[in-house]
Amino acid sequence: MSSNYYWGIDIGGTRVKLGLVNTDGDVLVSSVIDTLVENGPDDLVDRIAQTCKGLLLTEKIPSDMVRAFGVGSPGPMSQNKGTLLDPGNLPGFENYPIRDRLAQLLERPGVLENDVNAICWAEFKFGAGRDVETMVMLALGTGVGGGIIYQSELIQGAKGNGAELGHMIVVDQGRECKCGQQGCLESYASASHVVKRTKEKLDLGLDSTLKEVINENHHLTCEAIFEHAEDGDDVAVDIVNSVARTLAQTAVNLDHIFEPELCVLGGGVSKSGEFLLSQVREHYHDMMWDLNPATMEFAITELDDHAGVLGSAALCFDKF
Amino acid sequence: MSSNYYWGIDIGGTRVKLGLVNTDGDVLVSSVIDTLVENGPDDLVDRIAQTCKGLLLTEKIPSDMVRAFGVGSPGPMSQNKGTLLDPGNLPGFENYPIRDRLAQLLERPGVLENDVNAICWAEFKFGAGRDVETMVMLALGTGVGGGIIYQSELIQGAKGNGAELGHMIVVDQGRECKCGQQGCLESYASASHVVKRTKEKLDLGLDSTLKEVINENHHLTCEAIFEHAEDGDDVAVDIVNSVARTLAQTAVNLDHIFEPELCVLGGGVSKSGEFLLSQVREHYHDMMWDLNPATMEFAITELDDHAGVLGSAALCFDKF
Repeated sequence: MSSNYYWGIDIGGTRVKLGLVNTDGDVLVSSVIDTLVENGPDDLVDRIAQTCKGLLLTEKIPSDMVRAFGVGSPGPMSQNKGTLLDPGNLPGFENYPIRDRLAQLLERPGVLENDVNAICWAEFKFGAGRDVETMVMLALGTGVGGGIIYQSELIQGAKGNGAELGHMIVVDQGRECKCGQQGCLESYASASHVVKRTKEKLDLGLDSTLKEVINENHHLTCEAIFEHAEDGDDVAVDIVNSVARTLAQTAVNLDHIFEPELCVLGGGVSKSGEFLLSQVREHYHDMMWDLNPATMEFAITELDDHAGVLGSAALCFDKF
Repeated sequence: MSSNYYWGIDIGGTRVKLGLVNTDGDVLVSSVIDTLVENGPDDLVDRIAQTCKGLLLTEKIPSDMVRAFGVGSPGPMSQNKGTLLDPGNLPGFENYPIRDRLAQLLERPGVLENDVNAICWAEFKFGAGRDVETMVMLALGTGVGGGIIYQSELIQGAKGNGAELGHMIVVDQGRECKCGQQGCLESYASASHVVKRTKEKLDLGLDSTLKEVINENHHLTCEAIFEHAEDGDDVAVDIVNSVARTLAQTAVNLDHIFEPELCVLGGGVSKSGEFLLSQVREHYHDMMWDLNPATMEFAITELDDHAGVLGSAALCFDKF
């Protein structure tokens, strides 16, 4: 009987997704549990292990079919040691040897990887990047995460916390980022900063259909801004165009380093799909030099909420 | 008898340096010939091969001690095919199969690499980076070249023309670069742009001791600007500070991608040494986030004019 199944465990600040994955990228069984950060890391790994064992029992899958596990988590971390360092989203998990604790409980070897790197790996193996060898990913959520695959290898950074593309500085002395820097990509293109920047524009007294949204909902979302941009509202159009231009600047810079075949956009901000993509593409071709042909393509992530589970598991395929 | 000697051939727009290198990084014999671009590539490779053979005869070195050759050249190029593509500095050399032509004439296998990548490799093997595994290099000459070593491997880019760090965009819609882009690092930090920017400031009527230099010499050099900055001239101080800040911004961005241990500055603009270095270092620590310790160090290239010869040859060590 084949034993090529792997656990993928995707830890977030609120919830943990886990699933059993085969080497074709099928998620055979899966579950979601609360992170309950306040209960600490020992409690969490216990519940993860119990959930995994429970799934095997319920689904009548013999445990010897599982070879290993991959766990994706917010960083910073040491992949080599398998420990979390000082993860902002997981207070109380500092210096926790999560990989080895899980290995004891699951009785399998495993790997620890940055959560966005794991998602990037999933897109590379099974999603938008399955036909390329070199790609970059920008995950445009509350923050901006990054991932880089160069010649079929994940670029982790020399200390395991590289590919932090959201914190590349796109404007010297630009907008303040929560990381402490000024002018990060994140402070222009993350969902929270898109909303913030739009509100700043509205506060200047510019006319906009978004004012009605705020009056009605007492709340402005990134999604609403993109919708109003599609409908031609000037303020929203300007913001989306500026986000697209900043993403294109980052794409040009990554092109000059890695020459990726593909730049994949993910996260909430990318949900408008081709509307954002076409603007990024246009700015990229506009900004890029003429010395070599500008050949990078742009796409939206193809995998659903399981990407983190899939990627974490897939990172083990060649290792165990 | 040992046969671990390698030719290093460093092609420039004006001159070609070549030398015989051993695996300890000693240049045993060397020579310089004119490129004579106007005579075309066949003439050049003939003269390179004749010079190599002449050196062996003169120095009484048996030709069977030479294992291979490395040739460094301005890009763009295809390393895989060993051909130059459309090198701006070598008109008439378009699509020339320089590696295989040299291989025929020298009767040895060889590699073709971008000239700045070769210099970066030399610094990594024998120079400022000999004790690190991950480093970046910025060669600040007439233009700005780049090199990246990640975990002891040269990052060539997926198509062989990556690591063009001088053309990362540091200012959206910034200064025009000769590459066709706007706001490239090169358009702020290259020797020619440092001079250009200084002249623009002087044209505004700002008071500066540099005006005397221009009156006397009818000419302004990057070197003079750095000297006057060290002497405290306000205009020169501002320019050097701005160059340092732009280099620091680039260093921060590369740190977030690769987490290099070291950033090496080379080329004419770096000749002021610690004067520039200390300012780059200060801006880097000032600009970099606090989430992880900012540990990248900065240094000036350590190798002399032979770096290109050394690096080209050294790129063959593990291959042949």
